[in-house]
Amino acid sequence: MSEYQPPLSDIAFVMGHVADIDAISKLDGYDHADRETVEGLLSEAGRFAVEQIAPLNVIGDRQGVKIVDGSVQTADGFAVAYGKFVDAGWNGVSFDPDYGGGGLPWVVGLAVQELLTASCMAFSVCPLLTQGAVELLAVHGSEQQKETYLHHMVSGAWTGTMNLTEPQAGSDVGALSTKATPAGDGTWRVSGTKIFITYGDHDMAENIVHLVLARTPGAAPGTKGISCFIVPKYLVNDDGSLGERNDAHVVSTEHKLGLHASPTCVMSYGDKDGAVGYLIGEEGAGMRYMFTMMNAARLSVGLQGLALAERAYQQARNYALERVQGRPIGSDDANATIEAHADVRRMLMTMKSNVEAMRALMYENAAAMDRAERHPDPQVRARNEALAALYTPLSKGWGTDIGCEITSLAVQVYGGMGYIEESGVAQHLRDLRIAPIYEGTNGIQALDLVFRKLPMSGGAVMMSLVDEMTATAVSLKGTDLADIGERLAAAVSDAVAAGEYLGGQLASNPNAAAAGATPFLRLLGTVVGGWFHAKMAAVAKAQIDGGAGGDQAADKIATARFYSEQILPSTAGLVSPVTCGESSLYAIPAARL
Amino acid sequence: MSEYQPPLSDIAFVMGHVADIDAISKLDGYDHADRETVEGLLSEAGRFAVEQIAPLNVIGDRQGVKIVDGSVQTADGFAVAYGKFVDAGWNGVSFDPDYGGGGLPWVVGLAVQELLTASCMAFSVCPLLTQGAVELLAVHGSEQQKETYLHHMVSGAWTGTMNLTEPQAGSDVGALSTKATPAGDGTWRVSGTKIFITYGDHDMAENIVHLVLARTPGAAPGTKGISCFIVPKYLVNDDGSLGERNDAHVVSTEHKLGLHASPTCVMSYGDKDGAVGYLIGEEGAGMRYMFTMMNAARLSVGLQGLALAERAYQQARNYALERVQGRPIGSDDANATIEAHADVRRMLMTMKSNVEAMRALMYENAAAMDRAERHPDPQVRARNEALAALYTPLSKGWGTDIGCEITSLAVQVYGGMGYIEESGVAQHLRDLRIAPIYEGTNGIQALDLVFRKLPMSGGAVMMSLVDEMTATAVSLKGTDLADIGERLAAAVSDAVAAGEYLGGQLASNPNAAAAGATPFLRLLGTVVGGWFHAKMAAVAKAQIDGGAGGDQAADKIATARFYSEQILPSTAGLVSPVTCGESSLYAIPAARL
Repeated sequence: MSEYQPPLSDIAFVMGHVADIDAISKLDGYDHADRETVEGLLSEAGRFAVEQIAPLNVIGDRQGVKIVDGSVQTADGFAVAYGKFVDAGWNGVSFDPDYGGGGLPWVVGLAVQELLTASCMAFSVCPLLTQGAVELLAVHGSEQQKETYLHHMVSGAWTGTMNLTEPQAGSDVGALSTKATPAGDGTWRVSGTKIFITYGDHDMAENIVHLVLARTPGAAPGTKGISCFIVPKYLVNDDGSLGERNDAHVVSTEHKLGLHASPTCVMSYGDKDGAVGYLIGEEGAGMRYMFTMMNAARLSVGLQGLALAERAYQQARNYALERVQGRPIGSDDANATIEAHADVRRMLMTMKSNVEAMRALMYENAAAMDRAERHPDPQVRARNEALAALYTPLSKGWGTDIGCEITSLAVQVYGGMGYIEESGVAQHLRDLRIAPIYEGTNGIQALDLVFRKLPMSGGAVMMSLVDEMTATAVSLKGTDLADIGERLAAAVSDAVAAGEYLGGQLASNPNAAAAGATPFLRLLGTVVGGWFHAKMAAVAKAQIDGGAGGDQAADKIATARFYSEQILPSTAGLVSPVTCGESSLYAIPAARL
Repeated sequence: MSEYQPPLSDIAFVMGHVADIDAISKLDGYDHADRETVEGLLSEAGRFAVEQIAPLNVIGDRQGVKIVDGSVQTADGFAVAYGKFVDAGWNGVSFDPDYGGGGLPWVVGLAVQELLTASCMAFSVCPLLTQGAVELLAVHGSEQQKETYLHHMVSGAWTGTMNLTEPQAGSDVGALSTKATPAGDGTWRVSGTKIFITYGDHDMAENIVHLVLARTPGAAPGTKGISCFIVPKYLVNDDGSLGERNDAHVVSTEHKLGLHASPTCVMSYGDKDGAVGYLIGEEGAGMRYMFTMMNAARLSVGLQGLALAERAYQQARNYALERVQGRPIGSDDANATIEAHADVRRMLMTMKSNVEAMRALMYENAAAMDRAERHPDPQVRARNEALAALYTPLSKGWGTDIGCEITSLAVQVYGGMGYIEESGVAQHLRDLRIAPIYEGTNGIQALDLVFRKLPMSGGAVMMSLVDEMTATAVSLKGTDLADIGERLAAAVSDAVAAGEYLGGQLASNPNAAAAGATPFLRLLGTVVGGWFHAKMAAVAKAQIDGGAGGDQAADKIATARFYSEQILPSTAGLVSPVTCGESSLYAIPAARL
């Protein structure tokens, strides 16, 4: 088992040269987020994650969770580590200082999250769910609700859950049937069964604040009839102390492919008299409220792809640097380690170059969200909001698909040992495999990209991204990065051809656009990854030309070139899948499939 | 959990129109393998697999194996089912009738193996290892050795194992250090530790015949100093009855990502006085003997990719045909099942079209082995031997890579339920993930393809395949399959460009060829898959034109078209990865990776 090393140097490069933390620290309220402070904070976060969280990863996988006396018991060490996590203030890094948060930019919070997730994804999803609940409450909760819950949730003393899914209502949230009826005293009684509730019950915090989607009497069918309720595990007395146990209970936990230490609960609300619930905002607005935190949540899930890919890469690299086996082609070195074999080197560079592309995209995605929120210029805010919206399905869909491929490559680098659970490398593959599924399947991300994001401002957002990517490609002409620019330009052309086809189908033949959505997401993610690599290579070249470039600058260029030679050209094979329409998908009747 | 349905109809199509079983049944000794008999046999094999073997799959995964009193105990039902398997004669389908085998062509044996593997891969690997041992003994064993062991191994009453790997000797078999010393009575004493020994011990058969690679005193270093020994679990008395327990013992079994029911053993030979071993053939020829059965073994592992992909496809399809969720784009059907969603349909067709491409390749690979062995014309034999050699790394490398991708797609079709082990779909992904690793990693398959198979007859074998593929593409011009032909022609051009580059590097810069080997294997596998689809579509069209084409013919064309639109174009993105050389792979020094 190899140690996780926080990738602070690449994070600093991306923070400084892609997300532009210097500019973000000039935004209102972010003046304490200067580069030096952020780097110091991330170094501390990395140390905490490695020392306190990473050791939980294997234990959690082996022990899983169990239900004892109707409550979930987490694996050894989880509760203690969570206490330290809360005490050290890591839960609230990006939250509102009014409620005890650190008030740091979202991009900094995302970096902390990367370190935490890479250390132990099963642990990290607990604060991740709390984060979603905090955001929803912060925007849509009443003052009293915020006062009652947010302080505890920002610190992490109380955790949050999101209750959308029911057996018949997964991707189609509108099909849910959990009910809420007014109790006559301003509170509601919630009853129904929810499934797939992450950390729906556990022994790590003193209270759990469930946010539950339910239908009120006479509500419209579908998503418009859904309201959102606070259903705390323990009711909160007027003085803020914890009161009665609410009628909200875990029924069972799932046996999953991975994330064994994260309790995925079947929750039953209102087995007896109905669980006491408090309506957030207006009736019927529940789905709209959920969308508030959806971009952030989707980016965070995309980040899981990055984090586990980084972890898996490190592990595979360390193994490849130690394992002696066979003689590389054209070499006489009988003691060569396997990284010297071209095929292993290809796998390692595939992992590394994709990880760095993902990190650039996702950090910039978060930075765009920061600028969208805080930039003084409303036009800049609007542009960044649109950009973040466009990036989000890429971060989530492309990031988790690539992440899964990379965790599988790590198993391959390990060879036979990778198949043995003791080596710890297969766990990353198992843990991450949920990420392309939850928080909107990647198929849904692709539909979001094509049907909601491409048409933004009549296609202008996408076109402006294309212009920027083209400008980067052009700027490399005549330099020693010209080959990278040329390959980027070719890939951008593929994206344009595919995007224009989809744009043309949206109104006339929407299912043809839907048929092309998944390969288009892959295509655009690949191109945008190549664009970030080209931009980072240009920064590195400027450093080198200015005499300031060290190993990192040279390696950034090498990584960008590998990506442009090996990964980026795949866009050429994706234009046909996007543009061939839906007919061959449906040519065989369903019953004969 | 959905039932496995033997895909007899597609197998019959491939058997009849790709592998040409009619022609094979005309070869010497295969006259009992006429189409009708074969179809009847496969129908029986399917029934047996579904009724007796498929029920073991989930039980085996949950229970795994354990060591009780120094011996491996398999999961409930395995020993009984194995007994029935032996009694029904399924073990010996393709083996020599002189030793009790069915004497059927290898392609028929492969089809039986598909059904068995899809039903329960963890069960199927036991006869698979026996098969390898039988082949090796049949060719290289002495008459006495064959008489002593083969009857029991052909029937399956005794099983076989292959002992190559040691901790420091995986892909580099030549690094092994197990020793064999002459005992003075014609027998040897073998001592050493072997790892990753599939079914190294179990309770399903009365004896286990270990074939063990070891070094004799004064042997040359590397693979040339390796000899192959028979080391039976129980010594065999002169009268054929079982005698003393040999000094060959299981030490432990591995905890694996999948294949839980297949005991992967650490074996210790000669803990006491040395295990009694019998030299096969000549000293120092062990590795050469292993190569005898390597093509067959690699094809059989490739087949695991096909079999589990078929199983996963069926399961995903059945789920998609039942699961109601959401409204497809452009549809008003609130009760649509998810197969109606374009993204799900894309996944299902991706699975189906790849499965059918794999089946065509692998069955033809086996048929080429049959023709290479039995065809009366020595030129035809030679051509088919070369063709089988070229196909084998594709069957193994491309087949298992694609197989793993398809098992992962099945999880995706299931959505959140796919991540829950009870749904049974994640097991296929876990079980199959070993296939790209064992029997020569897929990286090694790629090197085999580029360094051994491409240069066969100065490249003539590859060029003749290219000519055949081009001829198929040309033959579709002017027909209503013209679009399929055009896309095939484009993909063949990509293969030619990539292959010519590699051919040019082999002598001058072999590591550049090694660097391109893995994407070339993917490229060529994809093209060959597209070629088989085009040929099958042409057969289907002829059936339709002749008034004999039913649903199957129409669906074959639809599947071929989908593959040509959606899968085949990926070759365009693989030329650059093959032809960019090794420099960007090695641009970053190993220590800075």
